[in-house]
Amino acid sequence: MKILMVIVDGMADRSVDGTTPLKSARTPNLDLLSEMGINGIMDTIRPGIRPGSDTAHLSILGYDPFQYYTGRGPIEACGAGIEVRPGDIAFRVNFATVEGDGSVFDKRVVDRRAGRIQDKEELVKAVNEGVKLEGIELILGNASGHRAALVLRGGNLSDRITDSDPKSEGDKVKRVVALEPEAEHTARVVNEFIERSHAILDSHPLNEERAKNGLPKANVLLLRGVGKAVHVPKFHERYGMRMAVIAGTTLIKGIGRLVGADVIENERFTGSKNTDLDLKVKTALKSLETLDFVLLHIKAPDEFGHDGDFEGKKDFIEKVDSAFEAFTSLNFSEICLTVLSDHTTPVSVKDHTADPVPVMIVCEGVRRDDVKHFNEFSVYRGGLCRIKGMDLMNILLDLTGKSKKFGA
Amino acid sequence: MKILMVIVDGMADRSVDGTTPLKSARTPNLDLLSEMGINGIMDTIRPGIRPGSDTAHLSILGYDPFQYYTGRGPIEACGAGIEVRPGDIAFRVNFATVEGDGSVFDKRVVDRRAGRIQDKEELVKAVNEGVKLEGIELILGNASGHRAALVLRGGNLSDRITDSDPKSEGDKVKRVVALEPEAEHTARVVNEFIERSHAILDSHPLNEERAKNGLPKANVLLLRGVGKAVHVPKFHERYGMRMAVIAGTTLIKGIGRLVGADVIENERFTGSKNTDLDLKVKTALKSLETLDFVLLHIKAPDEFGHDGDFEGKKDFIEKVDSAFEAFTSLNFSEICLTVLSDHTTPVSVKDHTADPVPVMIVCEGVRRDDVKHFNEFSVYRGGLCRIKGMDLMNILLDLTGKSKKFGA
Repeated sequence: MKILMVIVDGMADRSVDGTTPLKSARTPNLDLLSEMGINGIMDTIRPGIRPGSDTAHLSILGYDPFQYYTGRGPIEACGAGIEVRPGDIAFRVNFATVEGDGSVFDKRVVDRRAGRIQDKEELVKAVNEGVKLEGIELILGNASGHRAALVLRGGNLSDRITDSDPKSEGDKVKRVVALEPEAEHTARVVNEFIERSHAILDSHPLNEERAKNGLPKANVLLLRGVGKAVHVPKFHERYGMRMAVIAGTTLIKGIGRLVGADVIENERFTGSKNTDLDLKVKTALKSLETLDFVLLHIKAPDEFGHDGDFEGKKDFIEKVDSAFEAFTSLNFSEICLTVLSDHTTPVSVKDHTADPVPVMIVCEGVRRDDVKHFNEFSVYRGGLCRIKGMDLMNILLDLTGKSKKFGA
Repeated sequence: MKILMVIVDGMADRSVDGTTPLKSARTPNLDLLSEMGINGIMDTIRPGIRPGSDTAHLSILGYDPFQYYTGRGPIEACGAGIEVRPGDIAFRVNFATVEGDGSVFDKRVVDRRAGRIQDKEELVKAVNEGVKLEGIELILGNASGHRAALVLRGGNLSDRITDSDPKSEGDKVKRVVALEPEAEHTARVVNEFIERSHAILDSHPLNEERAKNGLPKANVLLLRGVGKAVHVPKFHERYGMRMAVIAGTTLIKGIGRLVGADVIENERFTGSKNTDLDLKVKTALKSLETLDFVLLHIKAPDEFGHDGDFEGKKDFIEKVDSAFEAFTSLNFSEICLTVLSDHTTPVSVKDHTADPVPVMIVCEGVRRDDVKHFNEFSVYRGGLCRIKGMDLMNILLDLTGKSKKFGA
């Protein structure tokens, strides 16, 4: 039996006048699936622990985030297509604009996104070729828009250092500082990188051209989210299943690459409200023909949550539900379907909260419960009761006949 | 207050056309008890972890199987009445028949059960007296039918070795191999034991006699399930209660002996469908007059599960229910009753699965819930919600006023 895991990012919500976007949405397909399966609520990490999408996804895939999550950097680097190795340190990077005189650390950030620059491959190449650090290999990976990822390798690097990104415009680029004596060498190397890459970028023809056209120069790299990469066992080694990830969001693609999944890309998977839901569903079902495990990720409900947009979230959930009609006629003796949210993103909070998420599992043999609606106010009465994110994979492996017996 | 723990092995099931053997069985007594008590579902080890009966029972008795389960050998040796000590290595043993020339490892297994030999005490004695191993004490313990258990003691033995049992007939006896360099001495000793015991058995008068009568010789010992015994605290030391085990199954008796319980034997407790359920129940109630904790184990529903026999399982559960009528009139201010399954054995899977099991607790003061039927589709709505096997003993100790306060 194969497994289709559908994660609707931030779909769950808190109560607003006794309802939620999910509860108030018309969701005949989710409700039918809920009725056909077993339901419950799930703490993706632990009760009361507010998950990021990254830590939540790791946990749901059975990778303890307390062990495998060392910061956003390594995941973003994977998402940018860099092969990250244990011991590397990795950063999220913004191409940004600085102005002023003196050293790069005396200059002020005037645009944290360098005018939302799009085509910057040449700049990435120039940094990779031009910056030399003694004893350290560096890899700058390109990502969408103004984003990039940086990996430093070799020389016993530490991730106990601060960010260079001042986070707000008008402030100076921050000199990276060691948080413990052992990290001083790393801080020095990273500051050197920031200086040398600035020198190369500031005088690069592409930036001279931008300046001439009145566009902000993409002349500095702002670093944040540093993490030291650890060994992460591949999904297929761990579970004996080949995995596909269908997602528009770089972060989720990064998690897919981190665990060795096939990341299926398509420009119509945008990771936003203009994504092609039907194509995503179709691609997921197609992938199941050749692979054993498919993670289908849908991002937009989380964005509506962050925007505090109740109606927008509700309307988008209805679109998601329509796209899920295809799931209601799956052969559940061949495919085990689970639908869940990675965390709650209440429109009232505009950020992630730790409220448990609804989860359902539909497959042959599952103990159907009395739940008939898939929302925050109904599923807790279901047969799964309250489970943890880290338990979900084991439950799915057991239901699909893939787990080993412990004892005799 | 005393505790009566009733474990119906493999009673729980998965959904077959919306029902299960337990749900479709007529169980007025279980249902009445369920109504009188508090109910829930339980992951005997952890959600999604498929339990053996051995690991499940350890966990339910509050012995973490990840700490105390080192393989089936030590439990079987306890079941065969051998006093197992920490550091011993122990094996499950089959008396079997080999034929051919040369060393024992050149011969082929023609009957893995030596014609299901029954009376083999003389053979066991001959091996115990005749085989000498330098610096190693050996104890072969007799068990029912063709079964036995072997303990080796002394000389820093390792359990990182392979089985000698080829598992299928027609194959040669397997030479035991070390799985790490430190285990090479042990592998050599065990292979010597196999050779020397074969020499003694093959020429033993009882086997000469069997050969004359056309019966297969019980002339080799096949070893499997090796485990290195660890210190297991006794039940009465741990909980301050004297414990009795009423079971027909060697494995469960072995667990009882492992934790220092009184194992009450009776030839009418068969560990199978022909067991005397009424006598078992009567013996359990009798034992409670003098002891504090009684574990009553009923095996047959698991066997029907392994056989994929829905109707057989259902019918047997109805017999179990009839025998449990005696429990409905217990004085629940003196006895705390818990009824549960050790794991799910779905007739559709014919093996153990990790689906949580139903559990109920009936005693004075317990918070009665609305559950009126004891089955997989009803108890999850009960007041216990979803608990873990390792938590059950603590809950029972607390309900019966036996636990210490943590803090003040």
